Amino acid sequence: MHIRIINPNTTRGMTETIGKAAENVAAPGTRITATQPDSGPVSIESHFDEAISAVGVAEEVLAGERGDDPVHAYIIACFGDPGLLAARELTRAPVVGIAEAAFHVATMISTRFSVVTTLGRTGIIAEHLLENYGFSHHCRRVRAAEIPVLDLEDNADAALQRLIEECLRAKEEDNIGAIVLGCGGMADLTDYISEAVGLPIVEGVTAAVKLSEALVGLNLGTSKHGDLAFPRPKPFVGRFESFSHLNK
Amino acid sequence: MHIRIINPNTTRGMTETIGKAAENVAAPGTRITATQPDSGPVSIESHFDEAISAVGVAEEVLAGERGDDPVHAYIIACFGDPGLLAARELTRAPVVGIAEAAFHVATMISTRFSVVTTLGRTGIIAEHLLENYGFSHHCRRVRAAEIPVLDLEDNADAALQRLIEECLRAKEEDNIGAIVLGCGGMADLTDYISEAVGLPIVEGVTAAVKLSEALVGLNLGTSKHGDLAFPRPKPFVGRFESFSHLNK
Amino acid sequence: MHIRIINPNTTRGMTETIGKAAENVAAPGTRITATQPDSGPVSIESHFDEAISAVGVAEEVLAGERGDDPVHAYIIACFGDPGLLAARELTRAPVVGIAEAAFHVATMISTRFSVVTTLGRTGIIAEHLLENYGFSHHCRRVRAAEIPVLDLEDNADAALQRLIEECLRAKEEDNIGAIVLGCGGMADLTDYISEAVGLPIVEGVTAAVKLSEALVGLNLGTSKHGDLAFPRPKPFVGRFESFSHLNK
Amino acid sequence: MHIRIINPNTTRGMTETIGKAAENVAAPGTRITATQPDSGPVSIESHFDEAISAVGVAEEVLAGERGDDPVHAYIIACFGDPGLLAARELTRAPVVGIAEAAFHVATMISTRFSVVTTLGRTGIIAEHLLENYGFSHHCRRVRAAEIPVLDLEDNADAALQRLIEECLRAKEEDNIGAIVLGCGGMADLTDYISEAVGLPIVEGVTAAVKLSEALVGLNLGTSKHGDLAFPRPKPFVGRFESFSHLNK
Amino acid sequence: MHIRIINPNTTRGMTETIGKAAENVAAPGTRITATQPDSGPVSIESHFDEAISAVGVAEEVLAGERGDDPVHAYIIACFGDPGLLAARELTRAPVVGIAEAAFHVATMISTRFSVVTTLGRTGIIAEHLLENYGFSHHCRRVRAAEIPVLDLEDNADAALQRLIEECLRAKEEDNIGAIVLGCGGMADLTDYISEAVGLPIVEGVTAAVKLSEALVGLNLGTSKHGDLAFPRPKPFVGRFESFSHLNK
Amino acid sequence: MHIRIINPNTTRGMTETIGKAAENVAAPGTRITATQPDSGPVSIESHFDEAISAVGVAEEVLAGERGDDPVHAYIIACFGDPGLLAARELTRAPVVGIAEAAFHVATMISTRFSVVTTLGRTGIIAEHLLENYGFSHHCRRVRAAEIPVLDLEDNADAALQRLIEECLRAKEEDNIGAIVLGCGGMADLTDYISEAVGLPIVEGVTAAVKLSEALVGLNLGTSKHGDLAFPRPKPFVGRFESFSHLNK
Repeated sequence: MHIRIINPNTTRGMTETIGKAAENVAAPGTRITATQPDSGPVSIESHFDEAISAVGVAEEVLAGERGDDPVHAYIIACFGDPGLLAARELTRAPVVGIAEAAFHVATMISTRFSVVTTLGRTGIIAEHLLENYGFSHHCRRVRAAEIPVLDLEDNADAALQRLIEECLRAKEEDNIGAIVLGCGGMADLTDYISEAVGLPIVEGVTAAVKLSEALVGLNLGTSKHGDLAFPRPKPFVGRFESFSHLNK
Repeated sequence: MHIRIINPNTTRGMTETIGKAAENVAAPGTRITATQPDSGPVSIESHFDEAISAVGVAEEVLAGERGDDPVHAYIIACFGDPGLLAARELTRAPVVGIAEAAFHVATMISTRFSVVTTLGRTGIIAEHLLENYGFSHHCRRVRAAEIPVLDLEDNADAALQRLIEECLRAKEEDNIGAIVLGCGGMADLTDYISEAVGLPIVEGVTAAVKLSEALVGLNLGTSKHGDLAFPRPKPFVGRFESFSHLNK
Repeated sequence: MHIRIINPNTTRGMTETIGKAAENVAAPGTRITATQPDSGPVSIESHFDEAISAVGVAEEVLAGERGDDPVHAYIIACFGDPGLLAARELTRAPVVGIAEAAFHVATMISTRFSVVTTLGRTGIIAEHLLENYGFSHHCRRVRAAEIPVLDLEDNADAALQRLIEECLRAKEEDNIGAIVLGCGGMADLTDYISEAVGLPIVEGVTAAVKLSEALVGLNLGTSKHGDLAFPRPKPFVGRFESFSHLNK
Repeated sequence: MHIRIINPNTTRGMTETIGKAAENVAAPGTRITATQPDSGPVSIESHFDEAISAVGVAEEVLAGERGDDPVHAYIIACFGDPGLLAARELTRAPVVGIAEAAFHVATMISTRFSVVTTLGRTGIIAEHLLENYGFSHHCRRVRAAEIPVLDLEDNADAALQRLIEECLRAKEEDNIGAIVLGCGGMADLTDYISEAVGLPIVEGVTAAVKLSEALVGLNLGTSKHGDLAFPRPKPFVGRFESFSHLNK
Repeated sequence: MHIRIINPNTTRGMTETIGKAAENVAAPGTRITATQPDSGPVSIESHFDEAISAVGVAEEVLAGERGDDPVHAYIIACFGDPGLLAARELTRAPVVGIAEAAFHVATMISTRFSVVTTLGRTGIIAEHLLENYGFSHHCRRVRAAEIPVLDLEDNADAALQRLIEECLRAKEEDNIGAIVLGCGGMADLTDYISEAVGLPIVEGVTAAVKLSEALVGLNLGTSKHGDLAFPRPKPFVGRFESFSHLNK
Repeated sequence: MHIRIINPNTTRGMTETIGKAAENVAAPGTRITATQPDSGPVSIESHFDEAISAVGVAEEVLAGERGDDPVHAYIIACFGDPGLLAARELTRAPVVGIAEAAFHVATMISTRFSVVTTLGRTGIIAEHLLENYGFSHHCRRVRAAEIPVLDLEDNADAALQRLIEECLRAKEEDNIGAIVLGCGGMADLTDYISEAVGLPIVEGVTAAVKLSEALVGLNLGTSKHGDLAFPRPKPFVGRFESFSHLNK
C-alpha cells in the first residue's frame, strides 16, 4: 500500500519530520511518500496561508494520480485540512485530513478532549472544523501554546517545553481524557509530550496514516457518486491552465 | 464609496452581468468595479473549482489594496463564498460573500427560505455554508435546477425557465416565505423570477452590494484584532512567491 | 427613503438619542423619524417590560402604515427586538430589530464577538435571540456592565466608564474580534467606546439603519407569503378594540 | 390548591372549554379558575395576535397575585405560550405554558412525536418553541389541519373530523409514538381523537394542569434569583400606567 | 395510584431514603413502593455500574408487571436514568427517570440551571443526558462535590456540607436560577440544601413522583406504537433465560 | 495483534459470520477471536435486548482481560454499540463499536450518507447514536428493510434482496455518497450489496476491525484519565457478585 502524505506547506524539513513520523506507525506493507508542493507558503498560520496551500494540495494529489507509482491513499498533513473536499474530488482513493483523523481517534479513546495548537489566531480554524465535522461537543477547549509553526523546526526544545506546559494546563483544568495536538509539525513530539503529560496524546499525521490504512484495507475510497465525483472538466486559464479538462 | 466586486471565475461575460446587477442597486455615491482573476476556472461547480478560485479572489483583493483607487469594500461573487476568511485577512475593508449576504437578507424578510442553486452536486456547498453561518434552521431545503453555471450565460432562456420552475416547486412544497438564488450568475434574473414566482427572491450579488454599503456606512471594516488580522508575513515559494512578506 | 425608528420604551430623551445616532449614519436620501409609543414602560429591563412594549411597537408600525408619510422601513430600537415578528406581519415594508442587525453585522467583520449589555438579568434575552437567530456559535460571551438602562440618560459619564471597562475585559479575556453593544440607549456612545477599546464596536441602531436602507435598496420587504402575511382580520375587545379587523 | 388558567384570547366559550377540560383531570384537592383577559383578540392565529395577548396574560397573573384567593400556579392556555417568561417574572408561583407542558409530557411517553395544529401559518410558532425549549429533535413534523381557531367552537364537528384525518396521516407517515395537539381550543377533543387515531394524544391544557400540580406539590415556584426575579419597579405611561411601580 | 420506585442500586438504606422522600411528596391517593434489584452494584458511579444496573431495573419493572398489585407508574431512581428506554418497552405504564424529571422541572421554574452531582467522573453521564434530552442549552454547568455515593448514607453530615458548599459556588458563579441535585441518594437533603443555599433546589426522585402522578392523571402511558412497543418475544439464554418469550 | 470481537447476542452462527468477515479484512499480523456471551438474547432488536446484552459485553471484556491471551482491542459487534462506555472503563485497550466505526468511516469517504438497518423500530437507536456521536448532519436518513435480525441467518437470500432494494431506494432518493449497513449480521453481505447498488457500502464489523488496528498501531488505548478510568471497586450482589471488587 502506497500512502502519499502531502505537507501543504513548502518547508522540506517539516515534510521530512512528517514522513518519518508516518513511517514510524506505518504497517509493514505500507509505503509512505512524503511530499510538499513546489509553490506555497513556508508555513500555514492563517486563513490566507491555508487558502493558498489548497492549490498545492490539489496539485500533489493530481501528481499522485498521474504518477507511475499508484497511490492508495492521500493524507493532507496540516491541521486545517486545507483543500480536503477538493482533493477528494480528484481521486478514487481515500483522502484523510490530519485534523479530522485526530478528532475521530480522540473520540474513540475518550469522551472529551482538548486541542493544543500553535498560535491563538489559528484556533478558529480548529473550532470551525470541530463544528463542520460534528465534534464540537466532544472538545472542551481549543488552546494555543503561542508558538509560530516554524519554531517547531527551528526552536524545537523551547517549543516542546511550551507545548508540554500547555498540555499540562489542559490536563489540570479541562476535565478531559485526551489531548489532540493541533499542528502537523508536532508529529515527532507525541511521545515526549505523552510521557511528560500522562494523558493519551493524539497526533494527526500518525492518526491519518492508520485511518488511511484502515480505509484501504476496507477497499473503500472516496465516493464518486454525488458531490465528491470528479469535477466537471472545463477550461482553466492563466497560471492554472494545467487544470483544464481534467479527467478527459 | 468604491466597491470592488470579484467574480471568482474567469468568465468575463459573467463579470459583466454581475457588475451591471450591482450597479443597478448601488446607491448614488457608490462606484462599482467588477473584476475577475487572471487565472482560474471559467465556472465554479465543485469543491476543486472553488479551492482554486480562492487564490484569484485573494489576488484581486491584494490588487485592490495596492491600487491607486482605494477600495472601501470587497464582494466575493460566487455562491460558495470562496476564500472569504482569507480575503478578510488581507484588508481592513469589509469583505462580503454573496451567499452569506443572501442568507442574512432572507432571514430579515422571512422566517423560512429555500435555496435554488444550479447543480445538485454544489448543493452541499450551500448546506455547509448554512451550517457554518448558523442559518441551517432557517432554510427548509437546498434545491437544484440542474443547470451548468455557464448555461446562465450561453443558454439563458432555457436556464431561466428551469429556474422559474424549480422556484415554483419550492413555493408550493417548502412552506417558505422567500427564495435565495444560489449562483452569482443569476444576478440579472432576479426580477424575472420574482415576477413569475410571486415570492421575494433574494439574490446574493445585489444583497452583498447593499450590505457592503451598510458596513462602510457604519465605518466598520474587518476586525484586525484576533484571527482576521493581517497574515504573519512569511516567504512563499514557486508561483506564489509574490505573496511573500505581505504587509511589510 | 423614510425609515421609522421605534424606540419601544417611552423615554423621549432616549428616542432623541436614538434618532440622532440614526441620522448620523443615514444615507443622503434617507429620512429618519424617531418615535416612541404613547403607552408603555420608561425602560425595558425584563421579560415583562419587553412583552408590554411589544404592543407599542405594533401600534407605532400601524401608525406608520396609516400615516400620510409612507414608511419604507421600520426599526425596533430595543436590544430584545420586542414584537419583531408581530410587527413584520403588519406591513409590507421590512422591519429590522437592532439586536438582529448588530449580530448580522458583527458576523461579517469578525469570526467571534461578545455582547456587552446593561443588566445581568437581561443577558438571557440576548442569549435567547442568539439561539433563535442562529448566532450562538459566533458569540463568545454575553456580559453585563450592570447599568440600569436609564443611567445611560441620567448618569451618562459613569455609565460610559463602566461600559468601557467591561468592553476592555471582553477584549482581554474573550478571544474576540468585535463587541456588540446590547442596548439601544448606547447608540451615541459607539465612537467613544470604540476609541477607548480599540476593537470594532457594533451598535444596533446604526446597524439597523444601514440594513434597512439595504433592504429597501433591494426592493425587498417582509414576505407576505406564509407566516408573515397580514394577520387574519378579527375582533379585538377592550382596550385593544382598535386592532379589530385590521387590513379590512 | 388553586390553579388559575388564563385563556389568552377573549372568547369566553373557549375559556369554558378549557376550564372544563382542566377540571376533568384536576386532582381532588385542586381548584381550577379559568379566566380570560378583558382586552385582546378573540383568537390567536398570528405573531401579532400573540404579542397583544401577552398583555392580557400578564394582567391576569397580576390579578391573581392581587386577589383575595391565593393562586398556587398559573397556566397560559394558548399553544404559543404567549408572555410565558413575562408572567413568570410577576409571581413566585409556577407558571406553565400549554405548549411546553405538552412537549415535556410527549417526550416522557415516546421517543418521537408530531404536532398537529390549526393553521399552517402558526406552525412556525410551534417550530420556534421546539427550538427554544430544546425539543426539536424529538418532533418529527409540525402539521396543520387548516382550521381557524374559532371553528373549534363554531364548527366543532367538521373541525374534529379534519383533526382526526391529519392525526391519522401523522400516524401513518411520521414514524412517531405520540401526537401533540397544537391548540388550547382542542382541550375537549383529546379523547375522541385518541380513540379514533389509536395513538397517545397529548393535549396541553390537561398536561399543564398536571405539571402545575406537580410543581406545587414539590413546593417549587418560579425562581426569584436571576432573570425571572420580579421586574424592577418603574413608571409605565399611557394606558399601561397601572403597571407602574409593581412590587412596591 | 401505585407508583413503583426502583432504586437501581442494591443498597437497601438508599431505597428507604428514596422511598421516604417519595412518600413525602406523594399525593393523598398515591401509594409508593420502593424497591431495589436483587442483583447489582451497591452504588452507581460509572458507566459500568450503570450498565449492570439496567438489568435490575428491567427485572423490577417485569416484577411490577407480573405482580398482583398493579403498578400505574415506574420511577428509575438513579441520576443516569439507567435502562430507561428498555424499561419503557416492558410496560404500558409510564416510566420516568429522575434525571429527566429534574431537568423538566428545572426548565419550568428557571431559564438556566446547574447540576451538582457526586463524583466528577459521573458528570459525563449528566452531560450526555442533557444532550440526549435537549436540555444542554438550559444547563450552565455540571459540577461535582466529589462525594462517593455511599457517603450520602454513611457519612451524611460531611456529604451534606460539601454539597451545600458546591451549591453555593454554583449560585455565585454560574448565573443560574435553580440547581438540580445529581444523585438519587440526595433525595432527603433537598430541604436542608434549599434553605442553606437560597435557590430553588430540584431533586429528581421527588420530581419524578409528581411527574408520574401527572402522567397517570392524564391517562397517558408509554406509547406502544413504534419503537417503545413491547420487545419482540425471543429466546434468551443462560442466566437471562427468564427473559425469554416475554409478552407471550 | 489480538482483537476480540464480541457479538453481543448469543447466536453462534452470527458470531461466526462476524468473525469471518473480520478475518477477511484483518491485517497479516492481526488475530481475530470472535466470541459471544453465555447469557443474553439471541438477537438485539429493542432497547431491552440491547440493555441486557450490555452485561454480556462487559463480561466478555472482563474475560478478555483475565485470559492468558492478551487482547489488544475489543469490538462490540452490534449496531447499537451496547455497553460501549462501560466496556471502555474495564480495559486499557481500545474498544470500538461497529456503529461508531461505520459512521467515522462513512464521513471520510462521503459528505452525506444514509443508514439501512433491519427493523423500523431499531432506527431510533441509530438516530440516538448519530446525535450522541455528532454525526446527525452527515446522515440524510435512517431506513429500515424490515427484516428481523435472525432472518439474516435463516432467510439469507430474501433478506439480501430486501436490503439491496432498500439501498437502491436510498441511492435514488437520498442525495448521498455512501450507505452504512445498520446491523452486525450483515457483515458478510457487503460485497454483494456494494456490487448491486453501485455505491460505497460501509459495514461496521469490518470498519471496526480496521479502526481497532489503527488505534493499536498508534499505541493508543482507552484513556484511564477521567470518566473512562477503571470503575471504583465495590461490592456487587446476587447474580452479579462476580463483578465485585474489580481491579483489586
